[in-house]
Amino acid sequence: MAVYTDITEAELGAFLAGYDVGELQSYRGIAEGVENSNFLVHTTTGQFILTLYEKRVNEAELPYFLGLMRHLADRGISCPVPVERRDGGTLGTLAGRPAAMVSFLEGIWLRRPQAGHCAEVGRGLAEMHLAGADFAMSRRNGLTLEDWRPLWEKSRAHAADVDTGLAAETEALLRRLEAEWPRDLPGGVIHADLFPDNVFFLGDRLSGFIDFYFACNDALAYDVAVCLNAWCFERDHAFNITKGRALLNAYNAVRPLSDAEIAALPILSAGAALRFMLTRLYDWVMTPEGSLVIKKDPLEYLAKMRFHRAIDTASGYGLD
Amino acid sequence: MAVYTDITEAELGAFLAGYDVGELQSYRGIAEGVENSNFLVHTTTGQFILTLYEKRVNEAELPYFLGLMRHLADRGISCPVPVERRDGGTLGTLAGRPAAMVSFLEGIWLRRPQAGHCAEVGRGLAEMHLAGADFAMSRRNGLTLEDWRPLWEKSRAHAADVDTGLAAETEALLRRLEAEWPRDLPGGVIHADLFPDNVFFLGDRLSGFIDFYFACNDALAYDVAVCLNAWCFERDHAFNITKGRALLNAYNAVRPLSDAEIAALPILSAGAALRFMLTRLYDWVMTPEGSLVIKKDPLEYLAKMRFHRAIDTASGYGLD
Repeated sequence: MAVYTDITEAELGAFLAGYDVGELQSYRGIAEGVENSNFLVHTTTGQFILTLYEKRVNEAELPYFLGLMRHLADRGISCPVPVERRDGGTLGTLAGRPAAMVSFLEGIWLRRPQAGHCAEVGRGLAEMHLAGADFAMSRRNGLTLEDWRPLWEKSRAHAADVDTGLAAETEALLRRLEAEWPRDLPGGVIHADLFPDNVFFLGDRLSGFIDFYFACNDALAYDVAVCLNAWCFERDHAFNITKGRALLNAYNAVRPLSDAEIAALPILSAGAALRFMLTRLYDWVMTPEGSLVIKKDPLEYLAKMRFHRAIDTASGYGLD
Repeated sequence: MAVYTDITEAELGAFLAGYDVGELQSYRGIAEGVENSNFLVHTTTGQFILTLYEKRVNEAELPYFLGLMRHLADRGISCPVPVERRDGGTLGTLAGRPAAMVSFLEGIWLRRPQAGHCAEVGRGLAEMHLAGADFAMSRRNGLTLEDWRPLWEKSRAHAADVDTGLAAETEALLRRLEAEWPRDLPGGVIHADLFPDNVFFLGDRLSGFIDFYFACNDALAYDVAVCLNAWCFERDHAFNITKGRALLNAYNAVRPLSDAEIAALPILSAGAALRFMLTRLYDWVMTPEGSLVIKKDPLEYLAKMRFHRAIDTASGYGLD
């Protein structure tokens, strides 16, 4: 939950004057997202999400994210569409921060997704990968193999406070990933953070993707591995192979995975689990007690790291 | 900012099945309100605010609050209107908590209200008082004179941590209020918490009141005194008599204050300042450090207590 920066009616009025969106009717802070401040804005012409980008976001990268949403939307992928300013741009300044408005997307993110929803995510992810193929801009994944060890060095001293086995298991996994991480898989634009709260449904149909602020260019199959971690484990951290099967086969039907991608799924999945364990551990250690940020438990991803260690082929995830 | 209770799509779907509001399109937690969990719900028939009542709210009192909103709306006061369930009631259960849906009100609450807005509030408050005159239900003010000393006893031990003069000044004011609190002023339904974040504007016109969960039956002029405290001081805690004049004269033009009410304004205003100082102090002392509730500074109201001490007639607030 997050509204880090409140805005006054005068500031917002001046900002909206840069757009052709009619008169302001209301704005409410939204208790979602942990990186930026988000407001639902109603004007006489429609509903929009206004985002103020907070310190974790690099302003120089915003054109990539906003351009990507525009690109995907133009190719039929349902996602927020940046609203053009009168000056033709999509990025402005509000309360001293970079800020953008995007279209409001109806839909519900699922607190309890079922296997059918995982199939929708697999299909939608593959469609997004195909639609991103001709996106002209590029952005390095800032949370991939090379970034993990520096992140680990910053929080490893506190790892034992979380779990006695965490340090040794992380070291062992990091070494294996550094030795074996696949380098030549088909690449393209990936979402890189496609958790349930970033996927909307209307009824049982996927209605859109949101929150592209980790999107980057990387191995497409890594995005699949992120989704296996995010969608196919139960609350007790057990892998649900029915969900894995649904997600992988639906993906594969739209964008067939290559043999190399299939072979790499276990190591990519282990890497994805490590990536989320590391950022959670870092946040856990670094977030002051009085903060308004909800801390997410790194142990959930330690459990997933352990699961992936025992998988050696993609059939272990349910791929037919 | 507050969403204390998250809800699943299945829970919400079952809840909405009790209403004739069409299909669910989206729901987002709103980062406003500090007592309850609020969601903006879109359905195929409209937009609603869904409130889950948390522990501070007494369920037995909810029919008063919901009935009052219905009553005021029927008399032309713009406020959220409770949506009727198929069973004719307005109160349901969601995620184990009492829950209600009300209509969504467009409008903006003003972070920086000006004197013209204070006049709108004075006029609107008087209209609300008149509209409430024939409301059949009654509720005791749970934060009036008799409640202040018990509240004080719970936090006075920590008062010195906030300000060295706080304990002595509070004791002195409490004694004076206990001796002189007016008892025979014209009574009726009061909002009792009409701060800027509970009043919406469209442009410079008041567009509605929200958050009736402190409403009760008490002296109408006490509500005016609350508004003087809430609307007519600047950020440096200085009283702005232009705002006070605007608010009081606009109120007086719609519902003329009696001589007794005018004479009582200074003591009512001092009491209102004490009431908000006490609840802020209590929250300050009792809220654990890691809580997601934003603590409001009790010192702001100590400054207001001091201001009111020096006022002996309503002309000191700007009443013509």
